[in-house]
Amino acid sequence: MPLEPAEALRLLGTVPLGRIVFTRHALPAIRPVNHLLEGDDIIVRTHKWTALARQVDPGEGPGVVVAYEADAIDPVTHLGWSVVATGYAHLITGQDELEHYGRLLRPWAEQPMDCAVRIRPEEISGLRLVA
Amino acid sequence: MPLEPAEALRLLGTVPLGRIVFTRHALPAIRPVNHLLEGDDIIVRTHKWTALARQVDPGEGPGVVVAYEADAIDPVTHLGWSVVATGYAHLITGQDELEHYGRLLRPWAEQPMDCAVRIRPEEISGLRLVA
Repeated sequence: MPLEPAEALRLLGTVPLGRIVFTRHALPAIRPVNHLLEGDDIIVRTHKWTALARQVDPGEGPGVVVAYEADAIDPVTHLGWSVVATGYAHLITGQDELEHYGRLLRPWAEQPMDCAVRIRPEEISGLRLVA
Repeated sequence: MPLEPAEALRLLGTVPLGRIVFTRHALPAIRPVNHLLEGDDIIVRTHKWTALARQVDPGEGPGVVVAYEADAIDPVTHLGWSVVATGYAHLITGQDELEHYGRLLRPWAEQPMDCAVRIRPEEISGLRLVA
């Protein structure tokens, strides 16, 4: 059953973890990350040596397009939902903003995270798996 | 902590669900699907009108490159693992094979699934989140 975009984004905000999808050397790439929903924007943290951070334009340009996926599907009942948001990603460069998100969003991986990325969804699709 | 490819693939085989990542109209696309591990190949089912099936070459060519991701990360302890396998995807066209996978792999979504795709991983990476 398709989900309305607003409901899809709301569901995405109820889980801590998703997967960011981007293109690396013309090949599809994906990394699980934890996220924060701020208004309609998805915020994730990364570190500056990742393939993702090196691609995302910190400047004035439109940025690169990424997809962000989250889901909550019960492996036993097969019920749940999945959401994909597609839009431009930008590096967050302001020191105050970086510190703000550094406090709100603690990465689960052990490596230090010195960058943050804002994804502004242009297209949101979602699916609810029903009995 | 990085995982050895063999261990990463073994872990992927212990969960029923993953996410297939591909390129659609030059943009990153992702869909959650359930999978089956057969030897080193990942088998998923889809239906013939999906963006994925329309791209995957049924013929003799090398196919299209996709990434396949699975993870099991505890949202409370933040422990777990994630695995990404990247490789060529091919439509499975033999009727016997299709029926075989149709019996083994029951899709969780309600739509009928009339195609199956074989992903032959060329590169497997994995990460274990440790305390």
